[in-house]
Amino acid sequence: MNEITMGLDVKSDRPLYEQIYQFIKEEIKSGRLAFGERLPSTRKLAEHLQVSRSTVDMAYEQLLSEGYIESVPCRGYFISELDGIYHLVPKNHAKKQKEPLPEKCYAYDFSPNGVDLGSFPYNAWRKLSKNILMDDKKELFMLGAPAGEAILQETIADYLHQARGVACRPEQVIIGAGTDYLLMLLCSVWGGRRKIAMENPTYKRAYRVLKTLNNEMYSVSLDKNGMRMEELEKSGADVAYVMPSHQYPLGTVMPMKRRMKLLGWAGEKPGRYIIEDDYDSEFRYKGKPIPCLQGFDRKGCVIYLGTFSKSIAPAIRVSYMVLPDSLMEAYKSRGSVFASTVSRVDQMIVAGFLREGYYERHLNKMRALYRGRHDALLEGLKEIPGITVHGENAGVHLLVTFENGMTEAEVIARAGKEGIRVYGLSGYYTENTQETQKATVILGYANLEESEIRRAVSDLKKAWTVRNVSMKKAGEDNGDH
Amino acid sequence: MNEITMGLDVKSDRPLYEQIYQFIKEEIKSGRLAFGERLPSTRKLAEHLQVSRSTVDMAYEQLLSEGYIESVPCRGYFISELDGIYHLVPKNHAKKQKEPLPEKCYAYDFSPNGVDLGSFPYNAWRKLSKNILMDDKKELFMLGAPAGEAILQETIADYLHQARGVACRPEQVIIGAGTDYLLMLLCSVWGGRRKIAMENPTYKRAYRVLKTLNNEMYSVSLDKNGMRMEELEKSGADVAYVMPSHQYPLGTVMPMKRRMKLLGWAGEKPGRYIIEDDYDSEFRYKGKPIPCLQGFDRKGCVIYLGTFSKSIAPAIRVSYMVLPDSLMEAYKSRGSVFASTVSRVDQMIVAGFLREGYYERHLNKMRALYRGRHDALLEGLKEIPGITVHGENAGVHLLVTFENGMTEAEVIARAGKEGIRVYGLSGYYTENTQETQKATVILGYANLEESEIRRAVSDLKKAWTVRNVSMKKAGEDNGDH
Repeated sequence: MNEITMGLDVKSDRPLYEQIYQFIKEEIKSGRLAFGERLPSTRKLAEHLQVSRSTVDMAYEQLLSEGYIESVPCRGYFISELDGIYHLVPKNHAKKQKEPLPEKCYAYDFSPNGVDLGSFPYNAWRKLSKNILMDDKKELFMLGAPAGEAILQETIADYLHQARGVACRPEQVIIGAGTDYLLMLLCSVWGGRRKIAMENPTYKRAYRVLKTLNNEMYSVSLDKNGMRMEELEKSGADVAYVMPSHQYPLGTVMPMKRRMKLLGWAGEKPGRYIIEDDYDSEFRYKGKPIPCLQGFDRKGCVIYLGTFSKSIAPAIRVSYMVLPDSLMEAYKSRGSVFASTVSRVDQMIVAGFLREGYYERHLNKMRALYRGRHDALLEGLKEIPGITVHGENAGVHLLVTFENGMTEAEVIARAGKEGIRVYGLSGYYTENTQETQKATVILGYANLEESEIRRAVSDLKKAWTVRNVSMKKAGEDNGDH
Repeated sequence: MNEITMGLDVKSDRPLYEQIYQFIKEEIKSGRLAFGERLPSTRKLAEHLQVSRSTVDMAYEQLLSEGYIESVPCRGYFISELDGIYHLVPKNHAKKQKEPLPEKCYAYDFSPNGVDLGSFPYNAWRKLSKNILMDDKKELFMLGAPAGEAILQETIADYLHQARGVACRPEQVIIGAGTDYLLMLLCSVWGGRRKIAMENPTYKRAYRVLKTLNNEMYSVSLDKNGMRMEELEKSGADVAYVMPSHQYPLGTVMPMKRRMKLLGWAGEKPGRYIIEDDYDSEFRYKGKPIPCLQGFDRKGCVIYLGTFSKSIAPAIRVSYMVLPDSLMEAYKSRGSVFASTVSRVDQMIVAGFLREGYYERHLNKMRALYRGRHDALLEGLKEIPGITVHGENAGVHLLVTFENGMTEAEVIARAGKEGIRVYGLSGYYTENTQETQKATVILGYANLEESEIRRAVSDLKKAWTVRNVSMKKAGEDNGDH
């Protein structure tokens, strides 16, 4: 064959060499150009198509590099045998994608798991990600260290020291793709079933994860200072999972005295541990942040868990766990066999984000933003009679307890009628809730603008006041007030 | 205060508003501007600094958004209380970073774990990653589905069907950050200790991971067709971990008959499974690729494992596991509690890479590249007397067995003296190797250019021929030949 005739579109965005490459590739795939056939020389084809010879050269180069043609010295280019050449036909998925069932539509959703995604620092992220990929650094695409990149370990250790009072060496920081994974890894480091006490109510995701990993789970109730020590003692647990900075969902801040008691409990018997989940300690609106439990641990009992999911975005699958010295040997033998779950590129982006000051800026911005929402919500709730607010001053949610005799279901339903979604506290209990408890709902405000919050709270006032008024009247008659 | 005096650098890359913002921020942090102090109005400061008012507006806006200042309507801007504002001081790590101990330096390293990183499709990756981040799609930064993004599940299911003959619905494809993680997840889905037989020699990483996860491990030897069935039967194992397309490290391709026997074994008793690790099936140089075992599984016994680590780069932490229908219920109850370990952004990049034809192109390019290296290595090895080559035709490594009486240690040492690193087969055995075995080394060629391979093999010829010649002479004397 000495001629290949094709239509070239000189006005197309696709370069000419690419059009030639594509045409010949299709001819080969379809079998119109068969195994062993000789292609015209680049000179001849260039003349024939009225293009420069280097254009044809580039097209042939591409075909060569993908194995469609072979070059035989002094003889020219020949069509290769196509056995095993990949030819993947993209399927048309359009028809398959089912519409998800419409959920009940709410005008305002006070989800306690929200993060303000509008504030995601896209520009900084893009810039860092571009710079890192720009370097064509080969080593970034090799498998990294199991615990994480040294530079990210150091950066996180520094940050935790400054912001949270964590005392650790960089190698104690284990980086992983999410808290669930890190708990999986921790269970493997322990190497056997544990008896784990969690606060009740609690972060049920962690409860389910630890239970699924074959641990024996206990639920311990809280008083106003956090996990009840006497119940913990009685439970027979050897691990206590706590959120001392801002308990989820109650918002309790564990005071120093209880922290010391807890550390005392852990130090009493060898093999006892505290898991300190510091999931949203970044956001505190009143007073100085309380340093974490880990910083006071002198016996190597505390496993510290943190994440960038709350402070940056849930999809940034970068969390970390600070292991105490007492578990480092076990990590080396039973933890470091697992390759890191976070790509080196992502680790470098996060390290850059922290080191170049973006994280500091982002945290301060989010803190100001959330504080505004927090204040707007508190202010609005003051107008509603018969309720008590608690768990405020930190985090991105607060709790409202009803003193007016409404049931939780009623509170939720009344809000729902106004198009507002609120979340019942009872859903966060791992064991049955006491029936006597007053109705309590959780309001997360990270996802709503201040103006939305004001409108929503004024609607909530309508929803939640009606019965209250009649109750009060009834109460007055009965002499309850 | 009505004046803030600062030096502005109009020639700087940093915009003026940023310089003003930075200056005032530092003044606040240092305490020179204290809580409650009023800032000059934007008009006044603009006049004073001889900049436009909008420049000062932007600087104040930034300070407001990060919580350093507050705006009081009709009164102006005031310094905020700084309690809890993050101020992270970057540490100077320069002195801490230790130089790693220099490893023995080799001119050529025939590592069997290599991937040609020079061919990483940086441009396509950058483009996809840019496009995905460009969209500012909020939902991409929310937590995704535990098993993975539906579009990536579909894309992988299509690809596996076309390229490997895998038969599955998209929801059976579970995406995870690396094979180690997926094995962890699989063990959690099983929910208890298993008796797992692996080929010997094998991929020891998987052996260690499964052992660390508390499984009982058995080693089964291979004949020329793969795992020995009678040994598997005798072992009492209920799970067989095999690499039928290209056994690691022996390179054995399991013929259809043995595959059917293995499937028969698994189907015999309920609860028996086969883990099919198809780690490098993308690269085959002779004949059509053999469809995978999973495609012939009628009883739901096969768990199929694949990864983009070999075909794209080890740092792309995206692997997948295809669960049989028989395990889908168990996955729902004991696997889907774990949040996905791969960020949605990364999942979308990989989905785009496959759907937009980049992967097809990349695979064909790599196949052509590796085939060239494979051929160069085979050609060179033909020149060396007294050796047999096996495990070729697929993957990115082959094996060389020595018929000349040299020990493995001697073979490695002789290559090392020429500056060439080769890997002894004995390191891949989980149990003691038989002493009688002939010295065998593994040569991986993914990391070396064709020209490097030619030079390295010519040096290997020198290294490995000397003794051989003397042996042959000795042999002739003894009448062995």
